[in-house]
Amino acid sequence: MTNLTLALDAMGGDFGPRITVPASLQALRSTPFLKIVLVGDKSQIDVHLASAEPDIRSRIEIKHTTEVVAMSDRPVHALRSRKQSSMRIAIELVRDGHAQACLSAGNTGALMAMSKVLLKTLPGIDRPALVSCLPAVNNTPVYLLDLGANISCDSETLFQFAVMGSVLSETVDKTVSPKVALLNVGIEEIKGNDQVQQAGQLLQQIPQVNYIGFIEGDEIYSGNVDVIVCDGFVGNITLKTSEGIARLLVHQLKKGLGEGFFVRLLAKIIAPRIRSLLNQMNPDHYNGASLIGLRGIVVKSHGGADEAAFLQAINLAVTEAQRRLPQMIEDRLESILLDINS
Amino acid sequence: MTNLTLALDAMGGDFGPRITVPASLQALRSTPFLKIVLVGDKSQIDVHLASAEPDIRSRIEIKHTTEVVAMSDRPVHALRSRKQSSMRIAIELVRDGHAQACLSAGNTGALMAMSKVLLKTLPGIDRPALVSCLPAVNNTPVYLLDLGANISCDSETLFQFAVMGSVLSETVDKTVSPKVALLNVGIEEIKGNDQVQQAGQLLQQIPQVNYIGFIEGDEIYSGNVDVIVCDGFVGNITLKTSEGIARLLVHQLKKGLGEGFFVRLLAKIIAPRIRSLLNQMNPDHYNGASLIGLRGIVVKSHGGADEAAFLQAINLAVTEAQRRLPQMIEDRLESILLDINS
Repeated sequence: MTNLTLALDAMGGDFGPRITVPASLQALRSTPFLKIVLVGDKSQIDVHLASAEPDIRSRIEIKHTTEVVAMSDRPVHALRSRKQSSMRIAIELVRDGHAQACLSAGNTGALMAMSKVLLKTLPGIDRPALVSCLPAVNNTPVYLLDLGANISCDSETLFQFAVMGSVLSETVDKTVSPKVALLNVGIEEIKGNDQVQQAGQLLQQIPQVNYIGFIEGDEIYSGNVDVIVCDGFVGNITLKTSEGIARLLVHQLKKGLGEGFFVRLLAKIIAPRIRSLLNQMNPDHYNGASLIGLRGIVVKSHGGADEAAFLQAINLAVTEAQRRLPQMIEDRLESILLDINS
Repeated sequence: MTNLTLALDAMGGDFGPRITVPASLQALRSTPFLKIVLVGDKSQIDVHLASAEPDIRSRIEIKHTTEVVAMSDRPVHALRSRKQSSMRIAIELVRDGHAQACLSAGNTGALMAMSKVLLKTLPGIDRPALVSCLPAVNNTPVYLLDLGANISCDSETLFQFAVMGSVLSETVDKTVSPKVALLNVGIEEIKGNDQVQQAGQLLQQIPQVNYIGFIEGDEIYSGNVDVIVCDGFVGNITLKTSEGIARLLVHQLKKGLGEGFFVRLLAKIIAPRIRSLLNQMNPDHYNGASLIGLRGIVVKSHGGADEAAFLQAINLAVTEAQRRLPQMIEDRLESILLDINS
């Protein structure tokens, strides 16, 4: 296996090095061909490196910087002023060919703005999209995009996201003719806002995308569709709502199953199974969203990710680098766009 | 108890009289002071009335009409052309004082447009909002609005929805100083689109609403907030996503618990408890959303509601009529608006 280098914004997220460094050590232990560049405050990082075995430590490089992007930074401000931030340096390592992918749990808007400017978008793509793979019924993978990198999207942007999502499902999951839908408030053609309606019209015109029309929120997890497109405002709230309702269910189940001696006894036996099922559906365990449409790999971790969840995001970045995802998307996009324009 | 008359669009929803009539019979049986006017095709309605006891039948009136609003009708078209539709006649019965509330499972956009024109909005309110009460952690009621009657909303509309939601929580649940939040993609002030940001600024200026700021999707069901405001596009997708994920959980639990003899046996004993918990969270069992901000009571049922769910919506309409909800909202709104403008 060829060596892979991952540039990691060690300071991003709610917990910074306390989570990012131990997760990196775990990743290095399980992935022998991996190297990680930890970008951030060396003294803070070193605290968590003390326990590292020498062969693991030898595959870690530290790029020291004390500047960080704050969660409250506006993207434009971060782009102009945070030139020495751990987030920016991690992206620059990808741009300059020193790393094959980068990963941050920091400010999504800033990550999007910096990635777009530093890495550039693929030909035919105006804006990168934040996308994640969710588990639907029967564990069918379903891609939802955009998840919050683009708060408002015009119809052309939604159209491009649909094309990219389709290519992603084709290339990563080998889905033949993935079913692509626009998320809307009804399935009838008259439903929704102008952006969604016009995007639907654009998609109907191209045979290269298997566009199946509008779907409503209750179809997201049905397993009947492979790619779901919406703007980042809707996508972010949709994803987080799913998280909230899963948490409510765990709470209610725990409470409900805890009543009565006999039921409590039985619940004890069944609980691990229920817990593992709920974990399967816990968005934290599907941590890691990708900014696609860029000429490089950028993975965004949930800000509140714990060590296991952050490790998932690292693994996602590794997988995408192994697959050379941007190149795959570019190749397929090119042939679709050529088809459309010819 | 004073007699109450409910005007019911018998033809609305996916199943029409097959669901609406039997649900009406059930409501009449359990609510002795209730009368129902069934608006729709007499011959279709009569089929389902055959089994009705004479005393129940005597509290039903049929207003015959064959015209219906189609699910694919644009609101403007429905408003101009469906003058003899079952939906419109049901609303007119409220306008003319023949009924204290009306109920339809039909086209939401048409219901909204007709209600607004025929019943008018309350002073200070430009657009009615579709609102529903959801179960949060510990069964705390949480109001989410708008749920799809207003696809896009400017900041002033979101502001009015926040005021109405606050009044609703105060008057219906007797919540003291209900916590009101705007649904957004982050809690920081810089997050979101212009409408949400400006609505937040408007709400910060009035002490009459206990505005706590932005919340993300994962806080909807946390029980930490009483009223959540968003535009109808986001609200509709949020609500339906919750429905979809609840369905996925049922599916996964059934599958997961079904493996292995011993576990299957235990699951059989515990299953009813899990099912009842899941039912508690099933949006169908919280059926019935209200169009508030009008000078009359209009309740919208889920189009796919079954008999039990439709009955829930009837009961909601009855409760609102008993409480004289529009009057209560108007009184409280007036004092708030006077305060704000003084």
